[in-house]
Amino acid sequence: MAYELYYWPTIQGRGEFVRLALEAAGADYVDVSRQDDGEAMMRLMKTADTPAFAPPFLKLGERTIGQVAAILAWIGPQLGLAPDGDSDRAWVNQVQLTLADLVVEAHDTHHPVDLAAYYDEQKPEAARRAKGFRDQRIGKFLGWAERVLERNRAGSDWLAGDRMTYADLSLFQVAEGLRYAFPQAAARVMRDTPRVVAVRDRVAALPRIAAYLDSPRRIAFNEDGIFRRYPEFDG
Amino acid sequence: MAYELYYWPTIQGRGEFVRLALEAAGADYVDVSRQDDGEAMMRLMKTADTPAFAPPFLKLGERTIGQVAAILAWIGPQLGLAPDGDSDRAWVNQVQLTLADLVVEAHDTHHPVDLAAYYDEQKPEAARRAKGFRDQRIGKFLGWAERVLERNRAGSDWLAGDRMTYADLSLFQVAEGLRYAFPQAAARVMRDTPRVVAVRDRVAALPRIAAYLDSPRRIAFNEDGIFRRYPEFDG
Repeated sequence: MAYELYYWPTIQGRGEFVRLALEAAGADYVDVSRQDDGEAMMRLMKTADTPAFAPPFLKLGERTIGQVAAILAWIGPQLGLAPDGDSDRAWVNQVQLTLADLVVEAHDTHHPVDLAAYYDEQKPEAARRAKGFRDQRIGKFLGWAERVLERNRAGSDWLAGDRMTYADLSLFQVAEGLRYAFPQAAARVMRDTPRVVAVRDRVAALPRIAAYLDSPRRIAFNEDGIFRRYPEFDG
Repeated sequence: MAYELYYWPTIQGRGEFVRLALEAAGADYVDVSRQDDGEAMMRLMKTADTPAFAPPFLKLGERTIGQVAAILAWIGPQLGLAPDGDSDRAWVNQVQLTLADLVVEAHDTHHPVDLAAYYDEQKPEAARRAKGFRDQRIGKFLGWAERVLERNRAGSDWLAGDRMTYADLSLFQVAEGLRYAFPQAAARVMRDTPRVVAVRDRVAALPRIAAYLDSPRRIAFNEDGIFRRYPEFDG
């Protein structure tokens, strides 16, 4: 049975964390909105018994689950991308949720005061929010990830235990997003987080991920997504 | 073995979602920072092998887990506050994460452009962010929760299935917080979400929760927390 992923068809956005897990595992899946321009997604949002507040959501048989971290906690074990045991899984979930917090803050750099208005309508506020994100928060988040890797008793190859989990794929995506949106600031921080960069490189070198990144299935970063390159943000 | 909760000792904040679960289950726990003013918490933040990015985190034996939704997904089954089965648990996790998104947005009403500065230093921006939250987002979030209750095939008493889960406790807390911080706007929205109000009332009437709310263990809402009553926000 194939997974059906429902997400906006023109951005990486939050859907990308799910795409990367499906791709890394070689799972059978359909990126539904890429085929119907979001029509089924909008219908399911309205009609499902377990409605998602927002995309992405993933369908497997009769079950639909939304929220990236909930999706990954659900399919991680199915895909071989989660450890065994409830408490080890809770730790991976915690790491994922912390990366999700970073994603919210990256989003808020371009939408600090009005979620329903365009970036153009909140540029001065966006510049102020971006400054704090660039100068303080990127370092705080990646510094935390570096510490997690450093203290992993099973070694620093992966965030949790001695095998790759979905959290490592998410760290890859976050590193890519930060490099796209805040190239100078990200480079500055990453000089001090070599283990984070090594995870990023290790994920990028996985044959399935390398093939995915090189395929048309990988949407390019763009300024409708979460990580946006606005020149006035970086420095 | 007792759970040890680590959180800021003077606010409900995010820790309250964990406190409510522990209290509702009658679990044996220590609210550590209430006894040592946060000293052990700050030490653990620095020294743990699995460091939390931020409080709250919960310790059980040698295991420490942070991030509210990860904590609740971990202890929910232990406390009898989660359904059986991976996919039903994933749905409860999804609901919890959506309520967590609302909590982030409630927080951002008073900290829209600078997480490291006081509210006083971003009042005009806060007013703009609060307007969108009050006029659009509260209704969108609670309307979604109302739909979840309405479509629950096991009945509308609880968000998921026919038994109370930790997500119902979180909905109670969110309803209380919104009523505190945005009394007029919350009242307006809640006229159209009777099932949400009924869950709130059902939780408040649980003997253990009623006793907790009446005890000194329940910290009052205040303007250092996430839900803050600033008169200029409501209307």
